[in-house]
Amino acid sequence: MSFLNRKYADLVPYTPGEQVDDTEFIKLNTNESPFEPAPAVKQAAVTAAVNLNRYCDTSCQSVIKPLAKHFQVKENQIFLGNGSDEVLAYLFQAFTEDGVAFPDITYGFYQIYANYYQTPATIIPLNEDFSIDLTAYDDLTGAVIITNPNAPTGIFLATDELVAFAQRNPERLLIVDEAYVDFGAESMTQFVDQLPNLLVIGTFSKSRQMAGARLGYAVGNSDLIADLNKLKFSTNPYNINSMTQAVAAAVLSEPAYVAEKIQTIIDNRTETKAALEKLGFEVTDSYGNFLFAKHPNISGEVLLNQLKARKIFVRWFNQPRTKDYLRISIGTTEQMAALITACKDILKEVA
Amino acid sequence: MSFLNRKYADLVPYTPGEQVDDTEFIKLNTNESPFEPAPAVKQAAVTAAVNLNRYCDTSCQSVIKPLAKHFQVKENQIFLGNGSDEVLAYLFQAFTEDGVAFPDITYGFYQIYANYYQTPATIIPLNEDFSIDLTAYDDLTGAVIITNPNAPTGIFLATDELVAFAQRNPERLLIVDEAYVDFGAESMTQFVDQLPNLLVIGTFSKSRQMAGARLGYAVGNSDLIADLNKLKFSTNPYNINSMTQAVAAAVLSEPAYVAEKIQTIIDNRTETKAALEKLGFEVTDSYGNFLFAKHPNISGEVLLNQLKARKIFVRWFNQPRTKDYLRISIGTTEQMAALITACKDILKEVA
Repeated sequence: MSFLNRKYADLVPYTPGEQVDDTEFIKLNTNESPFEPAPAVKQAAVTAAVNLNRYCDTSCQSVIKPLAKHFQVKENQIFLGNGSDEVLAYLFQAFTEDGVAFPDITYGFYQIYANYYQTPATIIPLNEDFSIDLTAYDDLTGAVIITNPNAPTGIFLATDELVAFAQRNPERLLIVDEAYVDFGAESMTQFVDQLPNLLVIGTFSKSRQMAGARLGYAVGNSDLIADLNKLKFSTNPYNINSMTQAVAAAVLSEPAYVAEKIQTIIDNRTETKAALEKLGFEVTDSYGNFLFAKHPNISGEVLLNQLKARKIFVRWFNQPRTKDYLRISIGTTEQMAALITACKDILKEVA
Repeated sequence: MSFLNRKYADLVPYTPGEQVDDTEFIKLNTNESPFEPAPAVKQAAVTAAVNLNRYCDTSCQSVIKPLAKHFQVKENQIFLGNGSDEVLAYLFQAFTEDGVAFPDITYGFYQIYANYYQTPATIIPLNEDFSIDLTAYDDLTGAVIITNPNAPTGIFLATDELVAFAQRNPERLLIVDEAYVDFGAESMTQFVDQLPNLLVIGTFSKSRQMAGARLGYAVGNSDLIADLNKLKFSTNPYNINSMTQAVAAAVLSEPAYVAEKIQTIIDNRTETKAALEKLGFEVTDSYGNFLFAKHPNISGEVLLNQLKARKIFVRWFNQPRTKDYLRISIGTTEQMAALITACKDILKEVA
């Protein structure tokens, strides 16, 4: 017999990108940083490890203080989650009873949260060129989630359009998921004081080299943050473990290291885009730590597998509008050179 | 305006035990281990820290393999959560649509989960002596949660009673929360193969010195575990970060260290209980890493504050049946001696 609640009978869970050994493979499939975390992280982890017998700080002060300073907001304007996935899960639980709207092509987990939390979801198709038309979200009720830059396209929507949307829909919550904002785009965090219906989400996984540490955040009006904390303290008050708090505080103490690695990713993105275009790829104008590219002579699926055969992992999304494309995370200079060489070889074979 | 979903308007979150600096205070208030984690933990944390740029393993193989071996179950019979609180949150979401029953005196979070997930909860009073009568749970529907040994009493219910309950209620799920089982009680994990309606919960927080690492588990029939994974992969697939996986694997590689510290706690519990009784305290027969004690001459609240004034933190639960008692976590030999000295002084003052 099954004990599972009937409402979950048809649940279709998320499929995470494959995790493979990055000493054996070139791993460009999950938008991680190819670089080690900042040097201070190691010692922070050891110090936390020897004190693991004690519970972690449920208020996460050691992270929230420097993060508030970084964003120039108050400490009660920041909420931390066990990865931005947990932040999103809390947002769906807290704020979506009147529905939620998001684009057809975006982070795949929004639809899964909508199913799981039984939130009515309105899916708005991106324009033909993958850009977002926010006026299409005007005549709805409930929350809106925009990933900006969007995934997997990398396309950036100007913040003034988002601000205008929030202003003309003051009774609706605008959630801007900025997982990829640090690679050259502009953050909405500067507007949280003037827009009480704005929540900005971010993560330590991409630009701060900490995908494995699981730390995500929401920045917004203190009332929204208080609501999220109410949910956290009703479900999992100790959600951020001591080691994650310690390494996050350490990485926040080394902004120069983080900035340098971000610049390398941006440079490698620019070079890789140019090299792919030279090979005949069509590449979106990505502001993320990844590129989204298709080639007229080879399908996304075939190229995915040909690259895999050469020990290069990228990501393919088998949906009607994206199946011609591959999403390629930006790695080191050497990794991107290997990718371009592999693409050249594969394209020669299909020519 | 408030954006919070109306169903959460009256939510009353959990109040965690106070976290204070344990170099300045004697911290006996949250049932942590007073001992550092096993030596292998340090190196494990460093190794994990330098690889944080990569996502963690969503299948948590490095922990599940040795844990399955430890419990002599298959790997697909174990589910891991971000603390046993997250495991409990998933259990409430997965399995309680037909209601849930638990004792009036037990882990305070069950009632909060029931409120949060809007599960009909039946509260069954403990017997006068704080023991559990399982026949009182027979004529109900839905799941049953028994903490065993119970908290904050420490009283242990014989496993044959729990087995008999599961056998005579095969269509109902029996959840046994064994957070404190390692300090001399008998685990139900040995019965998961014969009882498809049994789920056993445990934690690395108490006997394995890892409260700050946040790792809890459920052991049960593979169908139940598959259901829990379905929920995890629909909400937060990367719930156990790389460092927690690494330090948990490390602590599982040092069973002798863990066993030695457990024995010290048991010995200190025995001695402290005798010393408290000598001072006139009434002390339950605790199988946990804590004692539950009251004194005829001083109220729980007054003693709590008197101890706090002497920099000793213990826990007081302000409920009708427990407010005369204090829950005292078992610390080091020195810490328990200081507790007894302080109690002597305080009792002299009120005499």
